[in-house]
Parts: sequence; C-alpha cells; structure tokens
Amino acid sequence: MLEELKQAVLEANLQLPQYRLVTFTWGNVSGIDRERGLVVIKPSGVAYDKLTIDDMVVVDLTGNVVEGDLKPSSDTPTHLWLYKQFPGIGGIVHTHSTWATVWAQAGKGIPALGTTHADYFYGEIPCTRPMTNEEIQGAYELETGKVITETFRFLDPLQMPGVLVHGHGPFAWGKDPANAVHNAVVLEEVAKMAARTYMLNPNAKPISQTLLDRHYLRKHGANAYYGQ
Amino acid sequence: MLEELKQAVLEANLQLPQYRLVTFTWGNVSGIDRERGLVVIKPSGVAYDKLTIDDMVVVDLTGNVVEGDLKPSSDTPTHLWLYKQFPGIGGIVHTHSTWATVWAQAGKGIPALGTTHADYFYGEIPCTRPMTNEEIQGAYELETGKVITETFRFLDPLQMPGVLVHGHGPFAWGKDPANAVHNAVVLEEVAKMAARTYMLNPNAKPISQTLLDRHYLRKHGANAYYGQ
Amino acid sequence: MLEELKQAVLEANLQLPQYRLVTFTWGNVSGIDRERGLVVIKPSGVAYDKLTIDDMVVVDLTGNVVEGDLKPSSDTPTHLWLYKQFPGIGGIVHTHSTWATVWAQAGKGIPALGTTHADYFYGEIPCTRPMTNEEIQGAYELETGKVITETFRFLDPLQMPGVLVHGHGPFAWGKDPANAVHNAVVLEEVAKMAARTYMLNPNAKPISQTLLDRHYLRKHGANAYYGQ
Amino acid sequence: MLEELKQAVLEANLQLPQYRLVTFTWGNVSGIDRERGLVVIKPSGVAYDKLTIDDMVVVDLTGNVVEGDLKPSSDTPTHLWLYKQFPGIGGIVHTHSTWATVWAQAGKGIPALGTTHADYFYGEIPCTRPMTNEEIQGAYELETGKVITETFRFLDPLQMPGVLVHGHGPFAWGKDPANAVHNAVVLEEVAKMAARTYMLNPNAKPISQTLLDRHYLRKHGANAYYGQ
Repeated sequence: MLEELKQAVLEANLQLPQYRLVTFTWGNVSGIDRERGLVVIKPSGVAYDKLTIDDMVVVDLTGNVVEGDLKPSSDTPTHLWLYKQFPGIGGIVHTHSTWATVWAQAGKGIPALGTTHADYFYGEIPCTRPMTNEEIQGAYELETGKVITETFRFLDPLQMPGVLVHGHGPFAWGKDPANAVHNAVVLEEVAKMAARTYMLNPNAKPISQTLLDRHYLRKHGANAYYGQ
Repeated sequence: MLEELKQAVLEANLQLPQYRLVTFTWGNVSGIDRERGLVVIKPSGVAYDKLTIDDMVVVDLTGNVVEGDLKPSSDTPTHLWLYKQFPGIGGIVHTHSTWATVWAQAGKGIPALGTTHADYFYGEIPCTRPMTNEEIQGAYELETGKVITETFRFLDPLQMPGVLVHGHGPFAWGKDPANAVHNAVVLEEVAKMAARTYMLNPNAKPISQTLLDRHYLRKHGANAYYGQ
Repeated sequence: MLEELKQAVLEANLQLPQYRLVTFTWGNVSGIDRERGLVVIKPSGVAYDKLTIDDMVVVDLTGNVVEGDLKPSSDTPTHLWLYKQFPGIGGIVHTHSTWATVWAQAGKGIPALGTTHADYFYGEIPCTRPMTNEEIQGAYELETGKVITETFRFLDPLQMPGVLVHGHGPFAWGKDPANAVHNAVVLEEVAKMAARTYMLNPNAKPISQTLLDRHYLRKHGANAYYGQ
Repeated sequence: MLEELKQAVLEANLQLPQYRLVTFTWGNVSGIDRERGLVVIKPSGVAYDKLTIDDMVVVDLTGNVVEGDLKPSSDTPTHLWLYKQFPGIGGIVHTHSTWATVWAQAGKGIPALGTTHADYFYGEIPCTRPMTNEEIQGAYELETGKVITETFRFLDPLQMPGVLVHGHGPFAWGKDPANAVHNAVVLEEVAKMAARTYMLNPNAKPISQTLLDRHYLRKHGANAYYGQ
C-alpha cells in the first residue's frame, strides 16, 4: 500500500546523507497521505545505506503500525502531532544537522539576517522554550511536538517551515517529503551563515521588514515571480 | 544564435556547483555579446544538473527576451544595468556563496588583509549601503544594480571585480563568463580567510599600499610578470 | 591466529580516514580477545591505504609481540592499560581528529550541551589534567593511560566512552573496534557542535539532568526503546 | 635531464589540490639536485590538471632556465635563496592554504598548543616581520626569501620545517618535494586546530617544553621510536 508515498519517503530519507544533514542514523523523514490519514516514516535506527522501500513503516495518526516489519522512528509521536496540528503540511524531517543544532544548543532563534533566509523563512526561525521535567519524563516525543506547536501559536507553519527544539535540534516540513528536506537544507545553510555573521559582527541587525517581504513574496504567494 | 556565448554561459553556470558556490538554484551567470548588444543568462529557478544549452535565455539590453522558452533569471535587470554601466566587462555572476554572504549580512566591506586578496582585488571589496524602502518596493532588481554602481562611483570595476550587496550577497564580474566565475571563487576564498583572520586577531590590519600595489600589478597591467 | 579480530581491527582502522578522523597516520584502533588475553593493534606509522590484514600486530597484555612482523603502534601501552583497567570494553581508538583535539588543546571537558551528546555520553566528556614532567619523561604512553584512568575514578567507562588527553587528543572505546570508531565519530561531531555553540553563545548552559537521562536511557540500558 | 626529480616535483605539485592546499594555481613545489646545483620547479600560472612532466622547469641557482619551454614560478627567487641558505633541505612548497594564511594575515606565529604540532614542528612556527617598502619595491621575491632567513637566525630549518610570511602565506620544506608537501599539510592542520583552540579558549597555553621535547624526539633524531 501507499507505494508512491513510500518511494517518496525513501528518496527523501536518502537525501539526508547526500546533503550531509546526518551522521549515522540521526535523522528521519516522513510523509502523509491526508485522504487515508496514514503516515509513512523511516524505521528506527536503520542505516541509510541499507534502507529499502520495504523498510518503510506505515502508521495511522494514533501511532498504530498498519504495515511494516520494523519499529517506526522513535520520533514518530512528534511527527504525528505536527501532522494533526499543521493541516497544510505533507512531509516532515528531523535531523541533528550541525549548524541548526548549534543554534538549538545556544537556545536562540535565527534572526533573518539576509535575503537567503527571507527567500524561504518569513521572519526569525524560532527556538522553543526548554521542556519541563514533567514533559521530558512524560510522553517525551509527543510533548516535543506540543512545545513546537506552542511556539507556533502566532506563526503560520506554511510561512515558517522549520523550528529549533531547545537543546535538541531542528525539525522542518513542507508540502511533501522532498520539499521538507529542501527546507531542512536551507535551514542548515541559513543557520551556518547567521552564526558566522555574528562571529564577524556581533552587532549585525536583521534585514528590514520591507526587504523580508520583498524576498519572501518574490518566491511565495500569488505575486511570486521567481522560477518558471 | 550566439551558440558560442551560450556554451560559455552554460559552462560557467555549471562551475558554480563544482566550486561549491551555490546551494540549489541560488546563483546565475550571464555573458554579453557587446557587438550585438545581447546578453545570455541562466533561466530562473532551473536546477543546475538539468541545465542544457537550449535552456539559456537571450535578452536584449532593455530586458526583452529575444530567444528562449524559459523566463530569464529574476536578477536579469541587475545584470543588464551593470553591463550598461561597466562597459569593460563581459560576464557577471551572482551567488549566495557562504562567506561572501556572511560579509554582506554583516554589512561590511572586506579589507585587503593579505596578498591573496591583492592578487585579484585592488583594495577593499566594498559593501553597498542598505537599500531604501522605496528602492526595495520599486524596481528592486534594477535598483540593486543602481546601488552597486553608486558604490563604484570612485572605483574601477576592472580593478575591483566584485561587490557585496548589503544583507544579500555577492556579485562578481570579469572579461567573460568564465573569468567572472573565477573571480567569484576568489571572492569567496578571500572572504573566508578575512573573516577567520578577524576571529583570530580582531586588530588585524590591511596590508600596506606598497604590498597591495606589488601583488596586484604583478598579475595585472602592462608590467605583469605572473603566468606564461 | 585471531583472524576474525584482525579483520575487525583492520576494517575499523580503515574507517578512520573514511570518517575524516585522521590525517596521514595519526590514529590507531585496537581490539581485544578477552578469553585469550591478546590484543590486535595497528602497526606504527603505516599509511592507511597500504594497510593489510597481515600488517596487524598481536600483542599480549604485557606488550610482547606474539605475532606480526611490524612494530605495534607507539601508543600500545596506553591501549593495554585501558584494557586492563576497563574490563567491559572490547575496542579502543586514538586519533587527532580536529575538533576533539581543539578541546584537548583548550584543556577543557565538553559539557553536554544537547541531546546529540546525551544520546552517547552520559555527562561531560572529561579532559585529563596536564601530565607532569615525571610522567612525560618516564613511561610516557603508559602514564597517558594512567592519567586517563585517574580521570575516570568516579566515572563508568561504559557510560562515558571517550576522553580528551590534555594538550594531546581524544581516546574513545566501545564494545568492539567498530563500536569504538563509532563513538570516536560521535565525539568529534559533539566536539564540533559544542565549540560552535560557545562561539555563538558564550553563556550556553548544559542541558538538564532530566533531559540527559531521557536521551541516554532512551538508547542505553534495560529500558532503551531506540532502534530495532 | 633530471627525470626522476622532475617526476617527484610533478607528483608533489599534484598533491597540493588533492590535499586541498590550493585554489586555482596558488601554489608551487620545487626540488633540488644538490650535486648538480639544479632546481626543478613548477611553471608559473599553469593549472594543476594540465600539468605534465615536460612542463617542469629546470633552473640553476642563479635563476637561469637550463631546460623547459615555460617560465618558472614567479616565486623562484624565494625558493633559490632558501636552498642556498638552508643546505639540509631538498624540497620547498609555497601555498595560500586557508588556515596558515589566516595566521600570516593575523601577523602571528603559531604556538605549539598540542602534541600534533610537537610531532613535526619543534616550537612556535614563526611569522616573519612585515616587509619594508624598499624590500617590496625591490627584488621582492628574493627579499621574501631574505626575510624568511632573517626570521630563522636562531632557528634550525630542519627542526622547524615551515614559516608564515607576514600578510602573505606559508612556505614549508623538507628532505625532498614529497616531504615538503607532507609538512605543508601538517602546517595547515596545525594552523586550523590552533586558531580554533583560541576561539574556544582565548587563554589557551602552549604545551610544556617537556611535552614538546617528548613528542618531537619520539619522531625525530637518534632516539626516535615512532614508525617502522
């Protein structure tokens, strides 16, 4: 079942090492079939170079395995929560990519310091608050999802396709698994450039709202004029 | 038409990922046929690994597409303005290469801290002023060209083959598309070394005018003695 | 003799350049056969691309060469001491990998700044005290082992599978040679992320004990639920 | 003539891009035949991927081209001066490798912060004083050699096989061209680790003379015991 989605999720997972976003098995991509309410996700702890389409795990939105011999990613409850709360997204990726993780460990959101950022993320990429002991000791992966959506109370996940989980690392998403990985690559590059900008100039300032608007809207929305 | 120039522009564009100057489609190279007043440029938003010679777009100096099925790069008005204002150049490249973009985001020109810099750029590589809201909300890409040439009021673009656009990223140019990319590679390397020099020694000083002269003129002009 | 262990030690050594943990011959991996009390280790100063299974050296726990035509790694006495003091480990690796060495040169342990760290190292990765002149001028490589175990007086080497030797570089270990290299890769990545975190935020704080527990115990021990 | 030395010099030059020490043509290696008093050196400005054995240029110690159709490296007078002043060396390499150049631009010698450094360089790797206007405007490349040997008045070039030329970049040398490149690779790695050590800990201190002695003498001299 869901062979097309499985293939898309497999390929998106394989892109993680190609784009150098993961070491060993430190990342996972999922995709959702909204009509059937089913999610395809990478199995837990399986090396990317051994991953085949038959390893993909199908779960329903309550987390029951519907198909697949392997255990799904331990981060599955985070993915499921985000799919339920962000109805417009079709793919999610979690990694420990170096520079995005550095910002998460620093406990800071990434300000929009340039147009590269503005082309994809419509404002500062937020960092969640630290999770409480109760959240960590409870249903930890579900609570990780909840602290993300709490951070997005006043944010549109379609205009801000990524987040940093405090002390942990990035999640990114998109309209499908490939687009989610695309945004994760951009997030890592933007995180790298922003960190180095502050090392060079600790007083660097975000770009103006006008420039942010111009670049974001040049690529997104009804009046976009970038691309074919 | 312009098959030779198209081939040169294609090859120069393909060098951008080879030299790791671009992520995804974040860069474009153009070349000009000065006799005919025609510019060949990369199409907007097309992936480098799918780019063929037939995708190249030919535009005249007012921006009309003369040949090609695809839309030209959204940065075309910047390129055209620079070709009109800098009559000695034959190729232009724009990227979001990491270290040059870091300087642009820091809002700082790159001082000539060593002879690597002096071999190619005859003084500090300038950073433009921030663009005004009016410029950003108006003919943005054309205004980007104008803020560059304003920055070059007292500079010779043949002796300073690159610039940082404030909060955005680098443009570089040269006598032809390949030479423009060559200069963009040097700009990125010089930007990297300069940023790290300041991290190591915040009080680092530019090299002397005498050393700048020696190295620049060793490679350029009537008395050059580098190379064959 | 010990063909299986020799093959494992050879393969683990060859992983060092693949994971970019070594320049030239700056690293070595060993493995132990606990039943026979014999250790297989890389020969000293032999290039990785010329290494064959027959080059592997077999030594007993007092350092006598039992088999092999080549001299064992000059760091052999450090390995042997660690095998004797840490009975639970089966493989050891020493490298001068860049970021772990940077921490060793800085003379600082690596605090647990994020969950990547917590997934593998159960607390701050310690840095030894500087060695005394007497230790350095004496049986230096043996004393290197002793200063490591002194550092581990109150630490469990199975929960903390690596250390930084002050002014020198990292040692890591694991249940077998491959697992030791795995931990050395993680140590390098964690060292890189932690150093960059402090550059971005000099006031960054370690994660809470609760989060450290959750992540470490998610992957290790009786209640682990990561992987298949 | 000198076919064996030409081959060695060619191969050593080709190692520069393999070890990522050069961008474009920014580097050169030479070797000397001490009996005949002839030096083989890379031609000026020729790309590495087009370099053949027949491109190698043979010059005598006064700089006259004895064989070869191409102009020798513009840095030839520096090489020749060093061969005359340092009778124990057989190969020289000059690059603009990133981290060594960063130290040269910072105008600082590289202190021995760890044993990696001590394994090859017996103390702080020196940086020359800035050259005077007269030196720069005179026989610049020869004067570059002279400022290097002035820096080595009290240093043994066999125990300190490299130097940073202020505001310029590194020279390294060795017993033959391959060994010179080997030392240039180590210099770059040591420069990288030292710069990052100071970024992490601005108060980092050099290792003790005792540890410096131990590591340097473990690999060099009559009592060396590293390697086969």
